[in-house]
Amino acid sequence: LAIVNVEKPIVTLTTDFGLKDNYIGIVKGLITFLNRKASIIDISSEVPPFNIEAGRYLLETSYLNFPSGTIHLAIVDPGVGTKRKIVIIETDHCLFVGPDNGLFSFLKRSAIKRIISVSNSKYFLKDVSPTFHGRDVMAPVTAYLSLGVAPEEFGPAVKSIVRPKGGRKQKGRGRIIYVDHFGNLVTSLRQDDLPDGKNEVLLNNHKIGPVRKTFGSVKPGKPLCYINSFGYLEIGINQGSAAEYFNITDSSKTKILIAPN
Amino acid sequence: LAIVNVEKPIVTLTTDFGLKDNYIGIVKGLITFLNRKASIIDISSEVPPFNIEAGRYLLETSYLNFPSGTIHLAIVDPGVGTKRKIVIIETDHCLFVGPDNGLFSFLKRSAIKRIISVSNSKYFLKDVSPTFHGRDVMAPVTAYLSLGVAPEEFGPAVKSIVRPKGGRKQKGRGRIIYVDHFGNLVTSLRQDDLPDGKNEVLLNNHKIGPVRKTFGSVKPGKPLCYINSFGYLEIGINQGSAAEYFNITDSSKTKILIAPN
Amino acid sequence: LAIVNVEKPIVTLTTDFGLKDNYIGIVKGLITFLNRKASIIDISSEVPPFNIEAGRYLLETSYLNFPSGTIHLAIVDPGVGTKRKIVIIETDHCLFVGPDNGLFSFLKRSAIKRIISVSNSKYFLKDVSPTFHGRDVMAPVTAYLSLGVAPEEFGPAVKSIVRPKGGRKQKGRGRIIYVDHFGNLVTSLRQDDLPDGKNEVLLNNHKIGPVRKTFGSVKPGKPLCYINSFGYLEIGINQGSAAEYFNITDSSKTKILIAPN
Repeated sequence: LAIVNVEKPIVTLTTDFGLKDNYIGIVKGLITFLNRKASIIDISSEVPPFNIEAGRYLLETSYLNFPSGTIHLAIVDPGVGTKRKIVIIETDHCLFVGPDNGLFSFLKRSAIKRIISVSNSKYFLKDVSPTFHGRDVMAPVTAYLSLGVAPEEFGPAVKSIVRPKGGRKQKGRGRIIYVDHFGNLVTSLRQDDLPDGKNEVLLNNHKIGPVRKTFGSVKPGKPLCYINSFGYLEIGINQGSAAEYFNITDSSKTKILIAPN
Repeated sequence: LAIVNVEKPIVTLTTDFGLKDNYIGIVKGLITFLNRKASIIDISSEVPPFNIEAGRYLLETSYLNFPSGTIHLAIVDPGVGTKRKIVIIETDHCLFVGPDNGLFSFLKRSAIKRIISVSNSKYFLKDVSPTFHGRDVMAPVTAYLSLGVAPEEFGPAVKSIVRPKGGRKQKGRGRIIYVDHFGNLVTSLRQDDLPDGKNEVLLNNHKIGPVRKTFGSVKPGKPLCYINSFGYLEIGINQGSAAEYFNITDSSKTKILIAPN
Repeated sequence: LAIVNVEKPIVTLTTDFGLKDNYIGIVKGLITFLNRKASIIDISSEVPPFNIEAGRYLLETSYLNFPSGTIHLAIVDPGVGTKRKIVIIETDHCLFVGPDNGLFSFLKRSAIKRIISVSNSKYFLKDVSPTFHGRDVMAPVTAYLSLGVAPEEFGPAVKSIVRPKGGRKQKGRGRIIYVDHFGNLVTSLRQDDLPDGKNEVLLNNHKIGPVRKTFGSVKPGKPLCYINSFGYLEIGINQGSAAEYFNITDSSKTKILIAPN
């Protein structure tokens, strides 16, 4: 049996559906239709469209703040309608539901107790549309999990989830993976990825300076870098937008370099 | 008596209030003030301002996903402060509250059990402002409905709701009624509106091609059309934005034509 | 003891965190982690970044619509990481939690029963990051208040909150303090600030005309001014955006003048 609190289940949503349309409302409607007891909390509805890396970052840095037994439904799904799997992942702490495309690869292999490939159409809507598996498959699966249906009811166990390819990260080299609402630039580098000693951070060819503790350590309007509250190296502007300051429109073209000072 | 579950009432909101301001929060505050048991779920707060047709589309394609007895409060109200009516509409399945301006015209006459013209100011706030009937009239009416007050308490029954004028739709001719967050273009045409046989869809003078089943049937960056998950013909770009691709800024100037191939 | 309903506590959020990121979701997660009974309602997540005056306006015009005992958590905090205080403010009606930077200065001195300077780290997360006190300090403080912990447990009482400097307002002179989603321009002037008699409102050098009752009193596309539903003088366009019409990008450069007609 899973770890869901069936008396007061909590469900979170992390999607690229956007807040403009009714997609989020429909997913919440269906979950409520099937389980009126479920409380549903948005982590983000504004993951940049199809950006699995950004969705992963937002979910990774949020999920541990929620109660044990929470069901995290995450939908950033450029492959909807293709043969990508939909999975349920169980850890000691909580459950995840979503497409198996790298969105959950922040979970260490050792933290995962079980992976289920969702295939039992008994738990889907009767007619599954090719473009809205969030409504037709993932919302009802999430609702039935919140009612206490055990993960193994939804399909066979599988051995692994999709993880991004590519060699090991090079120490001190990274890129921007997320631009937040304030225009702060989150890099792929964590505290552990920084070389020891005094360092100078460079974004493309711009010198940002050493790693600082607070925004107040530079004047308003000036750039700085710091370890953000989730442990990632981030570049910001005191009371301003680094995305505007550095004119970042395509984060895939950015290069972060940590150089000895 | 109405069909509301007074133990755990569900209210939905579909408005053009936007998420930036406090209007949605105020409506939720008042409903909660009057009935702490109500659960309130947003369908959309970002209906394009004053766009009744877009609000109708978002509500029409959402409401059946919610539990029986749900109260759907919908506010897209360019006529606020004028003599347009505020109505409660009862069906076998649920209740609707909102301005009588065409927002609910997706409901077939046969599906409507009762229409009430809201006029009993006993259920309004004491001072009704001319510009915020959402707070002063519709939120408290919704809250009292959720407490189990019968629809007939709010005013006299009326025979019909406002429906858009204009002759019958011409088979195979339509326009764009909604642009979603991904830039997908929803047309006014449904599956039934398509002529039989092989068809070519045209948007203004652009050939979009035949109706496809999945996004993956064209290459990334290329346009296609398909029946969306709500049964409407929609034009999209595989992993892109059709609104940007076709530079759609005013959907009222669009023309969809279905031509034999 | 405070006035919180511990059986069904209500918490509101007014922040400049934005809806794009996971900051709001994390704050809700933590509150839910500590108190699963709390219902959390957004007043606004889209206060313009660092704009204390806009946050104050949104909170001031919302909070009385919520039930007695509601805990209002407000976070617009350009001074995060500096020595500004975090306060709990108690009135007869409700509780406020947030940075002491002017955000709560709409509360009259006579309405405030008690001000607590939050300092008891027993109620904080173990590691307080320098940049996210919303998560590390204010969310848990709010959650413990919702569990019934008395305000005095969180730190010593203090005598006053920060209020904006500057002399008394000049009768009939103001500026724009908030631009809403529809592009309506909220001024700093309230009904009481208007000189008696017939008046002409000017925005910079544009004549807007006398104070009107409804949008319908001017033609679509034309500007007008009126007392908004919160009692503030506001400038709008019938079925349009005044921000666009007057090209308002920086509201601090605006000047409102009320001249005798």
